[in-house]
Amino acid sequence: MMQVSEVEWSKTEKEVAQAAFAKAYEREIDAVAKEVRERASAISHSNDMWQLHDFLSARRHEIDGKYDYKYSALIFVFARLVKEGWLHLDELEGLGTDKLTKVAALTRM
Amino acid sequence: MMQVSEVEWSKTEKEVAQAAFAKAYEREIDAVAKEVRERASAISHSNDMWQLHDFLSARRHEIDGKYDYKYSALIFVFARLVKEGWLHLDELEGLGTDKLTKVAALTRM
Repeated sequence: MMQVSEVEWSKTEKEVAQAAFAKAYEREIDAVAKEVRERASAISHSNDMWQLHDFLSARRHEIDGKYDYKYSALIFVFARLVKEGWLHLDELEGLGTDKLTKVAALTRM
Repeated sequence: MMQVSEVEWSKTEKEVAQAAFAKAYEREIDAVAKEVRERASAISHSNDMWQLHDFLSARRHEIDGKYDYKYSALIFVFARLVKEGWLHLDELEGLGTDKLTKVAALTRM
């Protein structure tokens, strides 16, 4: 694993990171909310409702684990978010080249 | 507690009971589905969605426990369903007077 845990984050980098993190979270939440609304409107049997519950349980668990704002983990979090499509690499502009290179490298793994 | 566990249920009574049970379940599921749709359409923040998840968790747990179709427990189940408004006493017509009296008595407790 790359050693990123002791990398320093400048004030500007922290602002960029917080904004990108918040943006990705908002997008993913919006996508889940959209699916929840679609599934809710299509409930025609109790099974549909319990499947919606299962869906929400799984998504909540995943999202709670994924959006962990710690600078020691942020490079990996960003790489995952880019890979999953919740964030664009160019939304991380403002981070140092070292960090951007690591995120980009991780997204190709 | 009233002794009802060893009471016999005739074929007709079983049919009445099954129909009433299914009707109450359908009504309660419909009511939950309605609230799920309303809450889903009103999601504007992640908290709203996790509260919907909490709501579904609680309702599922309660409903799973409540709709226990065992003849030994059915008098109590029916009393609860009547008390909560998911079933009308007159939808239990066809049950023996002994059972109806017990359900009615329990709903007044």
